[in-house]
Amino acid sequence: MSGTTRDESTAPRVGIIMGSQSDWATMREAALILDELGVDYESRIVSAHRTPDRLWSYGREAAGRGLKVIIAGAGGAAHLPGMMASKTHLPVIGVPVQTRALSGVDSLYSIVQMPRGFPVATMAIGAAGAANGGLMAASILALEDAELARRLQDWRAALSAAIPETPEDEA
Amino acid sequence: MSGTTRDESTAPRVGIIMGSQSDWATMREAALILDELGVDYESRIVSAHRTPDRLWSYGREAAGRGLKVIIAGAGGAAHLPGMMASKTHLPVIGVPVQTRALSGVDSLYSIVQMPRGFPVATMAIGAAGAANGGLMAASILALEDAELARRLQDWRAALSAAIPETPEDEA
Amino acid sequence: MSGTTRDESTAPRVGIIMGSQSDWATMREAALILDELGVDYESRIVSAHRTPDRLWSYGREAAGRGLKVIIAGAGGAAHLPGMMASKTHLPVIGVPVQTRALSGVDSLYSIVQMPRGFPVATMAIGAAGAANGGLMAASILALEDAELARRLQDWRAALSAAIPETPEDEA
Amino acid sequence: MSGTTRDESTAPRVGIIMGSQSDWATMREAALILDELGVDYESRIVSAHRTPDRLWSYGREAAGRGLKVIIAGAGGAAHLPGMMASKTHLPVIGVPVQTRALSGVDSLYSIVQMPRGFPVATMAIGAAGAANGGLMAASILALEDAELARRLQDWRAALSAAIPETPEDEA
Amino acid sequence: MSGTTRDESTAPRVGIIMGSQSDWATMREAALILDELGVDYESRIVSAHRTPDRLWSYGREAAGRGLKVIIAGAGGAAHLPGMMASKTHLPVIGVPVQTRALSGVDSLYSIVQMPRGFPVATMAIGAAGAANGGLMAASILALEDAELARRLQDWRAALSAAIPETPEDEA
Amino acid sequence: MSGTTRDESTAPRVGIIMGSQSDWATMREAALILDELGVDYESRIVSAHRTPDRLWSYGREAAGRGLKVIIAGAGGAAHLPGMMASKTHLPVIGVPVQTRALSGVDSLYSIVQMPRGFPVATMAIGAAGAANGGLMAASILALEDAELARRLQDWRAALSAAIPETPEDEA
Amino acid sequence: MSGTTRDESTAPRVGIIMGSQSDWATMREAALILDELGVDYESRIVSAHRTPDRLWSYGREAAGRGLKVIIAGAGGAAHLPGMMASKTHLPVIGVPVQTRALSGVDSLYSIVQMPRGFPVATMAIGAAGAANGGLMAASILALEDAELARRLQDWRAALSAAIPETPEDEA
Amino acid sequence: MSGTTRDESTAPRVGIIMGSQSDWATMREAALILDELGVDYESRIVSAHRTPDRLWSYGREAAGRGLKVIIAGAGGAAHLPGMMASKTHLPVIGVPVQTRALSGVDSLYSIVQMPRGFPVATMAIGAAGAANGGLMAASILALEDAELARRLQDWRAALSAAIPETPEDEA
Repeated sequence: MSGTTRDESTAPRVGIIMGSQSDWATMREAALILDELGVDYESRIVSAHRTPDRLWSYGREAAGRGLKVIIAGAGGAAHLPGMMASKTHLPVIGVPVQTRALSGVDSLYSIVQMPRGFPVATMAIGAAGAANGGLMAASILALEDAELARRLQDWRAALSAAIPETPEDEA
Repeated sequence: MSGTTRDESTAPRVGIIMGSQSDWATMREAALILDELGVDYESRIVSAHRTPDRLWSYGREAAGRGLKVIIAGAGGAAHLPGMMASKTHLPVIGVPVQTRALSGVDSLYSIVQMPRGFPVATMAIGAAGAANGGLMAASILALEDAELARRLQDWRAALSAAIPETPEDEA
Repeated sequence: MSGTTRDESTAPRVGIIMGSQSDWATMREAALILDELGVDYESRIVSAHRTPDRLWSYGREAAGRGLKVIIAGAGGAAHLPGMMASKTHLPVIGVPVQTRALSGVDSLYSIVQMPRGFPVATMAIGAAGAANGGLMAASILALEDAELARRLQDWRAALSAAIPETPEDEA
Repeated sequence: MSGTTRDESTAPRVGIIMGSQSDWATMREAALILDELGVDYESRIVSAHRTPDRLWSYGREAAGRGLKVIIAGAGGAAHLPGMMASKTHLPVIGVPVQTRALSGVDSLYSIVQMPRGFPVATMAIGAAGAANGGLMAASILALEDAELARRLQDWRAALSAAIPETPEDEA
Repeated sequence: MSGTTRDESTAPRVGIIMGSQSDWATMREAALILDELGVDYESRIVSAHRTPDRLWSYGREAAGRGLKVIIAGAGGAAHLPGMMASKTHLPVIGVPVQTRALSGVDSLYSIVQMPRGFPVATMAIGAAGAANGGLMAASILALEDAELARRLQDWRAALSAAIPETPEDEA
Repeated sequence: MSGTTRDESTAPRVGIIMGSQSDWATMREAALILDELGVDYESRIVSAHRTPDRLWSYGREAAGRGLKVIIAGAGGAAHLPGMMASKTHLPVIGVPVQTRALSGVDSLYSIVQMPRGFPVATMAIGAAGAANGGLMAASILALEDAELARRLQDWRAALSAAIPETPEDEA
Repeated sequence: MSGTTRDESTAPRVGIIMGSQSDWATMREAALILDELGVDYESRIVSAHRTPDRLWSYGREAAGRGLKVIIAGAGGAAHLPGMMASKTHLPVIGVPVQTRALSGVDSLYSIVQMPRGFPVATMAIGAAGAANGGLMAASILALEDAELARRLQDWRAALSAAIPETPEDEA
Repeated sequence: MSGTTRDESTAPRVGIIMGSQSDWATMREAALILDELGVDYESRIVSAHRTPDRLWSYGREAAGRGLKVIIAGAGGAAHLPGMMASKTHLPVIGVPVQTRALSGVDSLYSIVQMPRGFPVATMAIGAAGAANGGLMAASILALEDAELARRLQDWRAALSAAIPETPEDEA
């Protein structure tokens, strides 16, 4: 998979990370938005529990590699976004993945209820939250990228323009 | 209220807005963090329901005035952060204020469950979330402000250094 | 789609609004009830976040156009009913649309927990709530429309008369 | 106690009812609003469980006595608003009273989750919800009372005008 | 449908009532248990909201007709069990029917959170709760019916005897 | 402490049991109701976890000793009512005691969600639920005790008669 | 069914118990893990409510038979793990089985909220929790079984090694 | 503060760790139990977010230092127990500390909902859970320490013996 990537020595501006392959069904919505907006990114599986050292090195090297924003998706205990926020000073966006028994309320609480000092910018549960993770990353990068700011505004204008005046009955 | 404000023609980088005076007890934690980090900000009461036109004009003029990030706190139905996100392309950080009957779960759901297209970077419920709103704003601004990045890293280093090895019994 | 509409210069008595096309599957239950009771209405898509200016103008012009009651359905953060209530003095009825992860509890809290000053007459989650939105609108209009009051009473009498004495096993 | 009452033969336009004396601490907020807006009302204790026959006769006679709107507050199982809705065709506004163990979530669910056919216009939990019950009643009556409509608009204008631009630190 | 009924002048010992035909899928579990235990019963649709007068007369006449125990099932706002408890001194058993949006938590809270003075003997949500409603009725009647007590003990002994020692993989 | 007890060889009709001394603050409400209604009872501490063998023997001997109904209160994991229901064929009434962190929702779910075969007649959380436990026991015993039935009806009539018509402002 | 069992006189180190055959679909995940790690176990149906005496004797004899750890799964009121913890000094691991109406929140609260004195080592809801029950048992046994400790470490190393660097789109 | 500690080269058998000084009010209950049972332990502040490297080294060195069991308490996002479980093969016991807004439900979900591979033995929310964490650690150590097993049995016997037969009214 994965977007407008570049070679590792010059990292893209956004890192999309997730706890497992199964989270990709949700997190690809973030990738699709970044593709639409022409923002370069990389996507990686970084499991807080199964590959803690990968999390450690990813977080420690993120700023130095040139990453600007990290979007982290996880479900259940969902420690990935918060632990990443403790390992880097870059803004971390968290996406609660929907879960089977608790519908993602567990993911949401684990991601959003961070203690003072370590914010995670938490999005809605599931696919809409992942797409919004991409948009939030873009709105941060657009602060210093006028071209991206224009594309983001166009994207939102198109979203609004697509709304009909009246609802339609299905045929 | 307070901080390092400037005259209106040259807006500060951060706008702290809240639905009512009573939210200030929570939201001042964001202001205190920005004071500590030397980030200029303004604080305003903007009620989504009582002053919708103020919300409208604040959102429409935010980018033009030079604001970079908006931190919005609200409780209960808590429409302020989400409505602000629909009126500006700047990153909006949402702080769910704790409420009496539902403890801020209502605020949290109203702020975090935004639809595709309009992300709000949601923080924890209450004062810790407000402080983290200030830190998240700083981490965004630090992407293009090396001096602030250094102060933010120092702030976190000091936070970590302050932790003792063993817990202390109170006298 | 829809009902006994009239030309725009003379608005119908009820406006059914919703945040997106997908809400129509729920909100048409309100329209069907109004059809049954012979109450004129219009149905419109008004997204609080994607078309905030449409919301603004709809709310500001509602009373002047002759609308009497607004039924607003939305899901998730569900800001539409509450924002409409801040823009018009007409009674606003809110219908929480069921959602995927949180089953509409998010919609319910976002709609019902309005602050002092801006009531939204909240109905049950989902289709039954939408139908009840139509009935609540009718009961308000019936205060000054004796003919409608009679039809509403007949509708309820028929509902009650249709209840058998004993439950039936399915064949 | 009780507002601008009139003799029983000519009932006031609004009936405020509640399940017990202890609910009055919440429901008086509705009465205060109606006092401010100059809307006549009566306030009564009508317990769904302890005085079911009083509920029956109150509901059956409400329209005939000249009542236009009923505001019903109750806590816990909170059957009063819904049962009243089944006994009268008048609009019934429900106020969930906050409870000790479940904080009013029980009251909210019992009031809002009414089946198709019997809407209750549900307000927020607690005192804000009671005040909003008064405002919702006023907005309904204002549809045919231009003078009240003007007072209601003035009331909301005053509410908005009272909001300062910036939050104040307490002395 | 329905069990070992007797003519109306001599009512059976148990009345199974429910708010609508759709509740019968759940409540028939109570009937099946009573059939197994040889307890006579009747089953009736009594809607708290659609047929409040039927509820009134059923409750008022229950003891006089010879009924001993009432099992009432309802979903959502679920006022039937509690209102029946206010109209009769007989023991009322409540069964929360599972609902679509809130899974029966609404039904449960509405049934169990009765105020001081009007207990409803609440069972588990759904079919298991309905079956247990039948068993609870039987255990009450068995206090003065030694033959039924013996059958109830046999039923439970058979239930226990049917449990294998070790779990079986499905073929 | 404790009511109209009799010597152990002839047990009273009602057993009030609870998991710990601290539950007595809640469960004494059941005892007070039984005192008012002149129903003999005993009160015992029977901890499911700390005194499982006491639970076993209490349950096994209950019917033989002459007990008719058991009222069991417990908080948190709250296994006492359900385990008692598995050891006796007598009706068991469960009272969820309010807890610190989860307010008694844990107690409620642990008591009410019993599997098919072992009903517990669950009451509201806390003191009101305990009082209702006493009333439910009385309504069961009243089926074969006309004198008690009359006292129970008088008790409820007095409860209803004590309700004033209008709420009173506190002095 | 069931793993590397031994004859009853020399019990295996782990007992997997569950409330009913239907729990086996969940609890076999614990058995599979123990198979993979080469830990001997037995699996038994022990219903707290239907076979309380079996629970009693299993708990009382567990340590004497040579069992070291008990993994207990149950759903709903879910009294099995907690009651087992009151009958044995061995470590008891609890697995909340997912339920239909409450998704296993009932099971979780009933298992985890044990009072002081009787811990149950609670796992996640459902199949992942059952697998983790097996791993927790292994980590306890590995404290005195160096060979098992090595196999457990290998198992976790293999789990980590299996994680790819980047997510894969499905074909 | 703190118990029967030993010099660092020979670590005690139990490590009590917590996210902050404020958690000690809860976690000291674990220490008190271990004191009563004569189990040596150390207590440390290890913050998952503020001192991630301390967490890393504590986890990596735990087994080698001679620790057998780790009891980890944390509140809110509460990543400490789960991250420790990913860094060591020793059994990790998790204690959810009660929180202000969400009462510890956030802590509970973050701790208990661990993914397959990394179990945390979760205790009840708050002080009772912390005490039980100490008891669970003791029951694990007692598997190979007959003297401790005897003390643990005595402790529980004393707990049971202290329960009076009947509840006492307070003077």
